[in-house]
Amino acid sequence: MQMVFLGTSSAAPTIQRGLSSIAIMRDGELLLFDAGEGMQRNFIKAGLGMNRKMKVFVSHMHADHCVGLLGLLQTMALQGRERRLDVYGQPRLKEFLIENMRIINFGLTFDVAIHTIEQEGVVVEENDYRVLCCEAKHSVPSLSFKLEELDRPGVFDVERVKKMGIPQGELYSRLQHGQDIEYMGKAVRSRDVVGPSRPGRKIGISGDTRPTDKLAKFFSGCDILVFESTYAHDKLQKALETSHSTATEAATLAKQAGVKKLFLTHFSARYDETSQLVSEAKAIHDDVEAAEDLKVVEIPYPA
Amino acid sequence: MQMVFLGTSSAAPTIQRGLSSIAIMRDGELLLFDAGEGMQRNFIKAGLGMNRKMKVFVSHMHADHCVGLLGLLQTMALQGRERRLDVYGQPRLKEFLIENMRIINFGLTFDVAIHTIEQEGVVVEENDYRVLCCEAKHSVPSLSFKLEELDRPGVFDVERVKKMGIPQGELYSRLQHGQDIEYMGKAVRSRDVVGPSRPGRKIGISGDTRPTDKLAKFFSGCDILVFESTYAHDKLQKALETSHSTATEAATLAKQAGVKKLFLTHFSARYDETSQLVSEAKAIHDDVEAAEDLKVVEIPYPA
Repeated sequence: MQMVFLGTSSAAPTIQRGLSSIAIMRDGELLLFDAGEGMQRNFIKAGLGMNRKMKVFVSHMHADHCVGLLGLLQTMALQGRERRLDVYGQPRLKEFLIENMRIINFGLTFDVAIHTIEQEGVVVEENDYRVLCCEAKHSVPSLSFKLEELDRPGVFDVERVKKMGIPQGELYSRLQHGQDIEYMGKAVRSRDVVGPSRPGRKIGISGDTRPTDKLAKFFSGCDILVFESTYAHDKLQKALETSHSTATEAATLAKQAGVKKLFLTHFSARYDETSQLVSEAKAIHDDVEAAEDLKVVEIPYPA
Repeated sequence: MQMVFLGTSSAAPTIQRGLSSIAIMRDGELLLFDAGEGMQRNFIKAGLGMNRKMKVFVSHMHADHCVGLLGLLQTMALQGRERRLDVYGQPRLKEFLIENMRIINFGLTFDVAIHTIEQEGVVVEENDYRVLCCEAKHSVPSLSFKLEELDRPGVFDVERVKKMGIPQGELYSRLQHGQDIEYMGKAVRSRDVVGPSRPGRKIGISGDTRPTDKLAKFFSGCDILVFESTYAHDKLQKALETSHSTATEAATLAKQAGVKKLFLTHFSARYDETSQLVSEAKAIHDDVEAAEDLKVVEIPYPA
């Protein structure tokens, strides 16, 4: 699994930073979190591919988080995308997409399935992962997201099973899937030949928000948390006024949530470089890094 | 007067080129022709200023020509723009802006005046310039634009008038404005003390189109013509299919129209560099240049 930051600026783009968008590549599928205006340019630079299995999650209806979907649709259509595109967001996102698809001649070559998120909880449930959302606290209704892989089955001790003389095939499969079996009149317990299940990865993405206890709970135990830190803590008043967070607040929440690694993002245009924000966050949390446009992050399984 | 290319790619952006947008700075006012998605980034890079007197003209309702308006409105609002913004385009542009201003919370700090262009001819008439439009020929209704400065009065021969003993003041002004006067019983003709009027500058901007005789007439005598050349002429079939022009066609039209200088723009993403297109156009027209993102063009008065 890889994460690529496609835009890390808040509100307005800068020369270095595009508007909010995070791509997660997982098992051939692309999960996109927010699509700020112009994000398709970094999407193209990152070589992510326009005809991939893909889901897009939109945290809220500010232009710097949703307008990029229009250009992305246009370019996908020009490139003849055929797969359905699944988009998830608040009711206004549906309105935004439907009205613009009516007004602008996109010449869509593919279906766009717009899924309206009506409540907190599970947004997407697939075989091996799910995406959940939680109410954030911003100037307009806004959501935070969490990608959560299901635990993988434990390691199957093939050598031991072989030694028992059990033939490969259905019995193996039953043991691997947690069922106890009987072989040659002897009981064989799954848990004796299959190790403990291995945890999947959890990645949290805050969108635009103030820190809240609810979010700290939602992001509890994430391997990676990408949290907005629009301001350094000396601009706390600005953060309060605009319903954003400071780097200190992001780190405090990450620590409270027991998050392993914190990425700061969504930087105000006033910060040409982000060392001040990383420093103040590192005073609170051990593992902090600043997001940068086109930075690629490998996400290993937890040790 | 200066022209800055803010985006020179057709349809989809590339690593080097953003989506269509051309800025003309004239006497402190900014005239923007098209606003493809993400153009605000080059707008910021070019240092054009978010609170300037400004008019935006939109040629047609494809995403790569109009979606950038949304991000521009958002950033102008964030920067507290106070001046009214005047926008000109087809009826669908009005719908596009009104629907998006309803759905997205821009927090606008300024008025947006949306002017619907219902017919060809004069779109804007100011004291010293006007903007005209002409029907283009594209896959959807599309307009070409022309910025036309009014002729400036001729040079006033102050020395000669002084020698006649005429006192500075109202009589000077009348002579300068073409009126004949009588001074000390003697007739003084304006044309004897004021040189021939000096032509203003004319700049044509094609938008997306096939070449047509009507456009050749519309752009007749332009000092500068920015004409789309999505393809080289060996891709004429593609140009016909997509209602675009080739570099050869752009140059042929420019020559037919007696245009002084031709800029090619709106290049297909297949062209990493544009020498092929410039070469074939130069075989037809003497003065051809390829547009590039952030290229600044000084536009002198005609000699």
